[in-house]
Amino acid sequence: MTDLIASLRDEARTAPESGIVDVITFGRDCADLIPLWVGEGDLPTPEFITRAAAASLARGETFYTHQRGIPALRQALADYHLRHFGKDWGAERYFVTGSGMQAIQIAVRLVAGSGDEVIYPSPAWPNLPAALQIAGAEAVSVPLVFAAQGWTLDADRVIAAITPRTRAIYLNSPSNPTGWIADRATLETILHEARRRGLWIIADEVYSRFVRGGLTRAPSFIDIAEPDDRILYVNTFSKNWAMTGWRVGWLSAPPEIGQVVENLIQYSTSGVAEFMQHAAHAALTQGEAFLAEETARADLGLEILTTALGDTQRARFTRPGGAFYLFFGIEGEDDSRDLARRIVRETGVGLAPGIAFGAEGEGFLRLCFARSRRDLSTAAARLRDWIAR
Amino acid sequence: MTDLIASLRDEARTAPESGIVDVITFGRDCADLIPLWVGEGDLPTPEFITRAAAASLARGETFYTHQRGIPALRQALADYHLRHFGKDWGAERYFVTGSGMQAIQIAVRLVAGSGDEVIYPSPAWPNLPAALQIAGAEAVSVPLVFAAQGWTLDADRVIAAITPRTRAIYLNSPSNPTGWIADRATLETILHEARRRGLWIIADEVYSRFVRGGLTRAPSFIDIAEPDDRILYVNTFSKNWAMTGWRVGWLSAPPEIGQVVENLIQYSTSGVAEFMQHAAHAALTQGEAFLAEETARADLGLEILTTALGDTQRARFTRPGGAFYLFFGIEGEDDSRDLARRIVRETGVGLAPGIAFGAEGEGFLRLCFARSRRDLSTAAARLRDWIAR
Repeated sequence: MTDLIASLRDEARTAPESGIVDVITFGRDCADLIPLWVGEGDLPTPEFITRAAAASLARGETFYTHQRGIPALRQALADYHLRHFGKDWGAERYFVTGSGMQAIQIAVRLVAGSGDEVIYPSPAWPNLPAALQIAGAEAVSVPLVFAAQGWTLDADRVIAAITPRTRAIYLNSPSNPTGWIADRATLETILHEARRRGLWIIADEVYSRFVRGGLTRAPSFIDIAEPDDRILYVNTFSKNWAMTGWRVGWLSAPPEIGQVVENLIQYSTSGVAEFMQHAAHAALTQGEAFLAEETARADLGLEILTTALGDTQRARFTRPGGAFYLFFGIEGEDDSRDLARRIVRETGVGLAPGIAFGAEGEGFLRLCFARSRRDLSTAAARLRDWIAR
Repeated sequence: MTDLIASLRDEARTAPESGIVDVITFGRDCADLIPLWVGEGDLPTPEFITRAAAASLARGETFYTHQRGIPALRQALADYHLRHFGKDWGAERYFVTGSGMQAIQIAVRLVAGSGDEVIYPSPAWPNLPAALQIAGAEAVSVPLVFAAQGWTLDADRVIAAITPRTRAIYLNSPSNPTGWIADRATLETILHEARRRGLWIIADEVYSRFVRGGLTRAPSFIDIAEPDDRILYVNTFSKNWAMTGWRVGWLSAPPEIGQVVENLIQYSTSGVAEFMQHAAHAALTQGEAFLAEETARADLGLEILTTALGDTQRARFTRPGGAFYLFFGIEGEDDSRDLARRIVRETGVGLAPGIAFGAEGEGFLRLCFARSRRDLSTAAARLRDWIAR
């Protein structure tokens, strides 16, 4: 370590490099690459959304705006939640953020710092424990367990992990990378215990609308919670409306802490561009048909992949209930980082190594199937042949 | 304090509400309002910039992109600094951020946290001490002093404020709100001492290009520093190119700490939208004529105001060397918050109270003169009449 790096603050210096990025850097120049390693689809943002941004730019809406979000977008968020979650909790609880990641960062800052613990099920999106670490808090994992019937979380293990230093429980459902979905009983157990002990819940329901089996959304804390429960809902426009590159998300929190949330926005990025917010408004108000198309496309993609991998008799997976990732293992392959590198080098299919999602993910690979039938068919054939070679 | 607020983390809960926002909330519905309280001009972003964003959107550039910034923009930043600061330090040291504010947040996270002190001259933009506080660090002010010849900083007082806990010195020059510009000797003294003691410097040179008297930029640490000095330069596209609402800035740092900077970006907002970056690229490469027009306009605005305020014989100010604020007092008026409220209520001219910029700013008002001749003439006449009433 050089002097310059040694002179940096520990929390910053020791933040981990993403294990997903690591394999991308290794494999980005492979011939005939089919990149299924990151969490984004292959469709650009639909035109009805980009048009709203361009129109706002043309109107000269390039000045500072409301730190909490423009009123029209906050109202649209309230309307969206009423439509899809059946609760009319009002516009005041919605805060527009510069990405779902920033919603997580702000949620973390609100409730945890040095000396605090936050519990989360693992495997998990690595940015969550990293954000906790940068805030000086300790990320305490409890395992999601893989078995023949799929991934399961033992809620009692979450409860058992609570210590006097625990400040919050982070629950990502549907889960990235496993596709696990918390059922209502699990949500009730966690909410009950959080209420009893005065803990916060950070509810990451980013993939809520990506579910299979004819559902339109996953079970949510919104189903069982009161508006003033200590729950911070973090979400993003990225996944539902093909807006990954935009960096716009939202936080839903009890309005009573609104000024604190606004201050954290003010002193980090000072709000989101007004023209971006008009695009987000279009997504919420006109985006259902696009979302339906995307989920149907993902279902087809999943079918293609599970058929091909099933054929090999050597792949371990169950059909994910939610999100758009297949998290699978290959018999006899334990080192996911090495495996992901070999696969991208030898087949051109880019996958994320399970170890990037925590020790509990080792031995698995994450594949994003929010892509075209053609790409996924090619990738499925290459993987089948490689595994069966 | 309610239970819900009490349950939040101290650093978040106690972050101050902006004293600028406070008076805006008070006065935003005044009749005939001329809002000179925030740090933005009245021109929308010029069309050559918005067009670049719209074109990128039309090309479907809506996917995740480089966390450090797209290569073309980082190169344009290197070229810009070579043109205007005469140093060819390469593209690798530039990191695109989601606002100048985020550049500050990241700079703070890099070098300071709980138990650390950061020294800064005050009056200062309130977001800086607030960002330090949220990071758990202590903001230690040294006074900028007002006298007949203008605002001055005694560099020896900066040095004297250093303790074993000091990790960095934050220097904003040209200064918001005072317009003070650090001369080369001051920069040399601070750099010398920072080198000797292994401290970091956070150089906020956001207003560097807004200077009077035929100069094209203010003295900069770049003039005297080496590329691997412990200096973090924070900057923004907001002021130079009328892009306040966009939330795009940059950080310039030794490339050696690039991975740490990238990690902090990854785990806070995960980068800036590619179409925004193309707009920023247009600003850097085609924006000089617009900037020249803006500075000429600001010079004229300043002339109008100083003439009117000078007429009253009751206004205290000197002509600011840089930035686009007049920071002035009125004889017999010591309570700037009350004064700003009375003025906006009775004249419709919106000003920021000096106390919002720290105790050293009490008794002053900040007026942004980056506006049309017509607005400023009206505001100047109203203020003159009100003061002379």
